[in-house]
Amino acid sequence: MATAMSELKQRLAEIADLSHAGAVLHWDQNVTMPAKGSSQRGDALATLARIEHDRFIAADTGRLLEAAASEVEAMPEDSDEARLVSKTQRDYDKARRVPSALAAELAKAASSGYEAWVAARSADDFSMFAPYLQNNLDLTREYVDCFDEYDAPYDVLLDDYEPGGTSVHVRALFDELKAELVPLIAQLRERQVDPSPLHVAYPLAGQRQLADEVLRRMGFTDEAWRFDDTVHPFATSFGRDDVRITTRFQDDYFPMGLYGAMHECGHGLYEQGVAEALQRTPLSHPRSLALHESQSRMWENFVGRGREFNEFLHPRLVELSGGALEGVGAGALFKALNAVKPSLIRFEADETTYSMHIVLRFELEQELLEDKLTLADLPEAWNSRMRDYLGIEVPSDADGVMQDVHWSAGLIGYFPTYALGNLIAGQLWEKIQRDLPDLPAQIAAGDLRGLREWLRENVHRHGGKFSSRELLERVVNEPIAVGPFVRHLKAKLSDVYELSLS
Amino acid sequence: MATAMSELKQRLAEIADLSHAGAVLHWDQNVTMPAKGSSQRGDALATLARIEHDRFIAADTGRLLEAAASEVEAMPEDSDEARLVSKTQRDYDKARRVPSALAAELAKAASSGYEAWVAARSADDFSMFAPYLQNNLDLTREYVDCFDEYDAPYDVLLDDYEPGGTSVHVRALFDELKAELVPLIAQLRERQVDPSPLHVAYPLAGQRQLADEVLRRMGFTDEAWRFDDTVHPFATSFGRDDVRITTRFQDDYFPMGLYGAMHECGHGLYEQGVAEALQRTPLSHPRSLALHESQSRMWENFVGRGREFNEFLHPRLVELSGGALEGVGAGALFKALNAVKPSLIRFEADETTYSMHIVLRFELEQELLEDKLTLADLPEAWNSRMRDYLGIEVPSDADGVMQDVHWSAGLIGYFPTYALGNLIAGQLWEKIQRDLPDLPAQIAAGDLRGLREWLRENVHRHGGKFSSRELLERVVNEPIAVGPFVRHLKAKLSDVYELSLS
Repeated sequence: MATAMSELKQRLAEIADLSHAGAVLHWDQNVTMPAKGSSQRGDALATLARIEHDRFIAADTGRLLEAAASEVEAMPEDSDEARLVSKTQRDYDKARRVPSALAAELAKAASSGYEAWVAARSADDFSMFAPYLQNNLDLTREYVDCFDEYDAPYDVLLDDYEPGGTSVHVRALFDELKAELVPLIAQLRERQVDPSPLHVAYPLAGQRQLADEVLRRMGFTDEAWRFDDTVHPFATSFGRDDVRITTRFQDDYFPMGLYGAMHECGHGLYEQGVAEALQRTPLSHPRSLALHESQSRMWENFVGRGREFNEFLHPRLVELSGGALEGVGAGALFKALNAVKPSLIRFEADETTYSMHIVLRFELEQELLEDKLTLADLPEAWNSRMRDYLGIEVPSDADGVMQDVHWSAGLIGYFPTYALGNLIAGQLWEKIQRDLPDLPAQIAAGDLRGLREWLRENVHRHGGKFSSRELLERVVNEPIAVGPFVRHLKAKLSDVYELSLS
Repeated sequence: MATAMSELKQRLAEIADLSHAGAVLHWDQNVTMPAKGSSQRGDALATLARIEHDRFIAADTGRLLEAAASEVEAMPEDSDEARLVSKTQRDYDKARRVPSALAAELAKAASSGYEAWVAARSADDFSMFAPYLQNNLDLTREYVDCFDEYDAPYDVLLDDYEPGGTSVHVRALFDELKAELVPLIAQLRERQVDPSPLHVAYPLAGQRQLADEVLRRMGFTDEAWRFDDTVHPFATSFGRDDVRITTRFQDDYFPMGLYGAMHECGHGLYEQGVAEALQRTPLSHPRSLALHESQSRMWENFVGRGREFNEFLHPRLVELSGGALEGVGAGALFKALNAVKPSLIRFEADETTYSMHIVLRFELEQELLEDKLTLADLPEAWNSRMRDYLGIEVPSDADGVMQDVHWSAGLIGYFPTYALGNLIAGQLWEKIQRDLPDLPAQIAAGDLRGLREWLRENVHRHGGKFSSRELLERVVNEPIAVGPFVRHLKAKLSDVYELSLS
């Protein structure tokens, strides 16, 4: 007997297949496609996206959802089936509200905005980019107007990346975080830490080999993963058995390649850990980008730049350096890796200053959306906040307000998930320390299996079933909080600077 | 004003986009995908194929075709528009005749047949494979029964790979070819030619570099091509600006890598040469596999193994061999490359014996389809024809009747296109010699531009507009013929064996 549920699953599986195809085409475009292929690839991607969207918002989907809803009524609220129906219903309702014409305009604006951004950034001329950004903002407001149940316009945007997130809540968290970080950064930013251990010249082949070893310890296997080089590192997956990550190696700065790889592998492990039963459903990929980022940043910073992993790493780097790192102790490496050094570019920021780059963007995005700030004033607003939060002067808009791709593509409301990821990582990390008392020793020995299995069991396997709030409720029994992340930073920085921060 | 033609083109462009996506997923599966990804990839490919098929055979397509047909009535029969409508109408009529359930069964049988073939071949046990082959044959007969206007059942199959081809015509050509080749092979097969120049050990990196150089001379560019290593070489394209070829290098047998690359690049040049105006239409890819194969085999054998290119190749191989080829003259290399050496495996056959491998399969396929031969008798029928045509004994079914993948995947009617490609190459080659008197000197100097441009102008740009018969009519003003290919072989072999063959 074909139940509505099984028909719904069949329909959603086909939509997942289209999404799989689109993701492969994107990966190929970024990793393997010859340059001239981009025009026809753009057509193919647009067609796939349109067909996927049309199939999803078809009235048939709605009817099946309704029928399936009554079939799962008696099931536990947290069951795969009940969650599948409720999450899909939520997406369906959202998707139906956005007219196809607006969706197409948003996609088009993203594409022309990207090109304008590349040109404006290379000319270091914000006025070339401003009209496109204005267009993105206008369309974003139109998008927000498609919805009516929200407290703040920004909440509509945030919800696309962080389901259930609200700007009031994020603002409260970020205000608390800012109150901790700004004085901490001011206190430490002038202290000298020798950065030279990071800038030893390492042969690229050796760096690649080291990254390979670390990835395999994290869980990378040849049967189910790929690891490639790209200019902009990223992770993607086409199901749990085909996970792909990239990084960029730099011969005079090893953290770029190694920590890029660990970061993306953190994302990849999340994708790979999703339960088999959720594959080819709308729950097969994690939904909260904050949760996703908590994984990548935990592996990159909590593990990768931690004192214990440093013990594992140091002898390998000494060997890799062919003598150049001789005499530089593990402690000096650890200090260099974690020094508080305010810098212009978010992507290259240290663990401590990173979150302030996000707070700044979050504040500006809201002010722009609520017409409290005009684009004409945006560069100066950016620069003055960089001064206030990080104590640095911005010499050019190219390395200031135009440094990130997101706004060019109309991705407004995305940035907060990066810093929320740090906060969640802090909360999970404290719980992990309690649950796995041997973990520090394991990490020092390069044994990462215990941590990976804990994350699989507590986080990964649930895929897109839970919001970050719901997941934290289950795992640490509290809402998202600032304290654990700040405690983590202060403990580490006390160690780096030989201080007692609290 | 949106004409029916422009609406039709829009619809077909979306179908081309879905086909682009499927082709990328196939390429990825063969070149880059981690092994465990195959299960979800299979689902995604099946969904894409189903959606593409459903959209194509929808009644809307038929209505648009009808309306567009009246719009193009006044246009020249050979115009892009008229050809687009007539070719698409033909495909539409064919596709509508095959029930979706049968199409799905054929796809499923292909997949299980492939697995059975791999297992049976590795166990060298034809009885393990026979039931699957029987199933493929039964389904193939069902497929044939979907059509009613044909002279022989085999014609229905042939038409899928070689539009307009008939078995009566192919049989007449192959009988003529057989009458020439069998005595020629018998006359030459016992003569000794030293094969050792082919088996010098060449470093793989050097082989790759040589192949790279040759490909670039043929027309390969980094902007629009990729060149990768795979176990089974193939070519594919996603439009004229994204062409991908692969080969397999073998350290003690350089022809495998180099000629595999030239062969696939021949296919790739055909794809790349299709006119811009035909992109994203059903005419964007060449349709006749015989024409396609005429290109790959011309580059591989007429050019690559020709006397003139040998002049270009020889000094490079001497250098590559690091001294091992010192003292082996260009003539010895040329002889080794073209010796008539009957062998078991089609894929590795020399230029002269190759076509007999095809004639053999063509004859067996027809007998199977017409119940003149049972599967129980197939291996012995294979072996006795190998004896008759090539004078060799088949020691095992793995290297005999089970050597090729095609039948396992239900591809019956495909093989003839390989030998037809040789014949067409012969015809085009004679015309090219007349049109380009300087070509031999150019090839000896490694300048392949003149040939490429001739092929672009006379063959490639037409994409899928013409059948092989129509194209030959335009270019050489005669139907497909055996004479030129045989003359080419005899001239070359006279040179190799220092005889006067005619």
